[in-house]
Amino acid sequence: MFSFRVVKSNGKARLGVLTTPHGAIETPVFMPVGTQGTVKAILHKDLLDIGTQIILGNTYHLYLRPGIEVIRDAGGLHSFIGWQKPILTDSGGFQVFSLSKGRGDGRSKVKVKDEGVEFRDHLAGDLHFFTPERVIEIQEVFGSDIIMPLDECVEYPTTHAYAKIALERTIKWLDRSIRAKKREDQVLFGIVQGAFFEDLRIESALKTVERNLFGYAIGGLSVGEPKEVMYTMAEVVCNILPWEKPRYLMGVGMPEDIIEAVARGVDMFDCVAPTRMARTGTLFTSQGKINIRNEKYKKDYSPPDPDCDCYTCKNFTKAYLRHLFNVEEISAYILNTIHNLRFYHKLMENIREAIREDRFEEFRHSWHKVYNLQA
Amino acid sequence: MFSFRVVKSNGKARLGVLTTPHGAIETPVFMPVGTQGTVKAILHKDLLDIGTQIILGNTYHLYLRPGIEVIRDAGGLHSFIGWQKPILTDSGGFQVFSLSKGRGDGRSKVKVKDEGVEFRDHLAGDLHFFTPERVIEIQEVFGSDIIMPLDECVEYPTTHAYAKIALERTIKWLDRSIRAKKREDQVLFGIVQGAFFEDLRIESALKTVERNLFGYAIGGLSVGEPKEVMYTMAEVVCNILPWEKPRYLMGVGMPEDIIEAVARGVDMFDCVAPTRMARTGTLFTSQGKINIRNEKYKKDYSPPDPDCDCYTCKNFTKAYLRHLFNVEEISAYILNTIHNLRFYHKLMENIREAIREDRFEEFRHSWHKVYNLQA
Repeated sequence: MFSFRVVKSNGKARLGVLTTPHGAIETPVFMPVGTQGTVKAILHKDLLDIGTQIILGNTYHLYLRPGIEVIRDAGGLHSFIGWQKPILTDSGGFQVFSLSKGRGDGRSKVKVKDEGVEFRDHLAGDLHFFTPERVIEIQEVFGSDIIMPLDECVEYPTTHAYAKIALERTIKWLDRSIRAKKREDQVLFGIVQGAFFEDLRIESALKTVERNLFGYAIGGLSVGEPKEVMYTMAEVVCNILPWEKPRYLMGVGMPEDIIEAVARGVDMFDCVAPTRMARTGTLFTSQGKINIRNEKYKKDYSPPDPDCDCYTCKNFTKAYLRHLFNVEEISAYILNTIHNLRFYHKLMENIREAIREDRFEEFRHSWHKVYNLQA
Repeated sequence: MFSFRVVKSNGKARLGVLTTPHGAIETPVFMPVGTQGTVKAILHKDLLDIGTQIILGNTYHLYLRPGIEVIRDAGGLHSFIGWQKPILTDSGGFQVFSLSKGRGDGRSKVKVKDEGVEFRDHLAGDLHFFTPERVIEIQEVFGSDIIMPLDECVEYPTTHAYAKIALERTIKWLDRSIRAKKREDQVLFGIVQGAFFEDLRIESALKTVERNLFGYAIGGLSVGEPKEVMYTMAEVVCNILPWEKPRYLMGVGMPEDIIEAVARGVDMFDCVAPTRMARTGTLFTSQGKINIRNEKYKKDYSPPDPDCDCYTCKNFTKAYLRHLFNVEEISAYILNTIHNLRFYHKLMENIREAIREDRFEEFRHSWHKVYNLQA
């Protein structure tokens, strides 16, 4: 039902195929974030048009709204949202730690205990308790293809001592998650933590790999640390992870981060950047990032990216997109989102093609040269 | 370059073909409102998918933003917005009277003079002066297929005396518009005014028809008067308008209004209802209107309208659309808009088919029966 195969490699960069009950995915892959059962400002059919292979759903948000009963009675998440390709859901842990903390009304403390995490949601402020078992149970209701165990994310910066406590708790929670898991049409990844300390990343990677999971995620990065730290942590971990299993770098990232992580052996990515930035007018192009609000585009009747094959670039000009954005038309957000996600998917296609043709290093260097020159 | 032909009729209801330089339009037709160069919350390609034949642009809004220079340098409105099918633009008069009045800061007076209309815009409050000549000039820059002359809209209710003044001014402005018009790849409609008085509607219709225009619009209705008054005014005017010319009832309306106006001989319609109501969660269905926010749809896994062939109804459930709307996802507005506009276009297709098959009266009565039963 599930398999992963490394088809080819260039140094540490790998071309692979991940097979799920909802179809096969070519890796390296970028997964658009469909927080609340939809990728923001784009329809499923447009996702399919631009080459989306798998989307990510946020357990925290879906658990709160519409709630698991509505999803269960619909026959699971695929059926509820009308998306028949693969879905990966996270554990909700990251949102518990980031969104609940942000309430700032004195009731906002997240209480991490060995048993689980107690938190108040960011909406009504109701009290909830997530345990590793509960998080698996919720994702079994969803029926997502790839599920994640509850883990403890620590902030940047943090102490070595606290990072070690969180790492150990994450491993214990992983063991409970493995025991709780029942469905056989889903696979569980292990999440490597260890914050920004090489020794802890190594310890976490070794212990997680001992559990022999289908795939491995690298969590706790892209939370404010310097890029070099992120790259080093990803490298340290990838050097330990078994070659024949998929690796997923959670919450990463900018195009340059993706290329650097692929160079270190990562296969899967997710990030809100292309969708969120689309809604503030930033477009990724083959020449660097541009902001469509810029006055200089007022009469620029060329497409955002002449090298792009998306609906937006094939049919519309910067001047028109600027106008739509300035007058706050919803179509501005849709068109920008189509373009940015297509840019990401095309980047992944180019990465895969480069690996297939034994020229990933060449691609990597020329890409940085062009992109950084303009950005 | 332009022609209009009544292909068939059932009583006063007519099936026609309106040919323009950007293609032919089957009438009766509904024109989605693309206020600022885009129909709200839907992409052009989705408009084409659901059978949109022509869109309407608002001269007032486009004149303010992006401004006529940007549109001129793009090569006109079709080119600027990337829409290759026909476009009708209004004169801006209606927005001048409604939006400028609404400013409520003491500077908001609209000054109607015989020369033209002085107004402050609803954005920065800058002073502008629209004359019949200026309004034609702006629309010649746009290059819209069908253009409208500046007219004076009066409120409901109004006095017979004022309605007569406005009517006479509208005729004088029409004569100036005819003289100002230069481009031959556009046609000008005359707008019949006369408020809610049969004698004035007759006078306005007779005088407007004397000018021998390509088509005739019925303005100043759907501004708060009872439906029966609107139907009567449309009927009085249609009885005078020449059979072989297209008739356009501006700003109308609800599905039942469209059917009643077709029964009286109207060929063209525009209204913000389907798009605006989509964004507040109201969906038109073959069984009446529903609001998707309703608690009773929480676990309703059936499509909004099982008889509808749109992307939304073919792929999604009320429960999912309700969820998307509740969590304020943009895709809720897109999916609702696709459905509502498809509902309108399908209604027009059904009307045309009924006329073609000599059963319009039957269609009209059965439609009211089903729709009013549930609505």
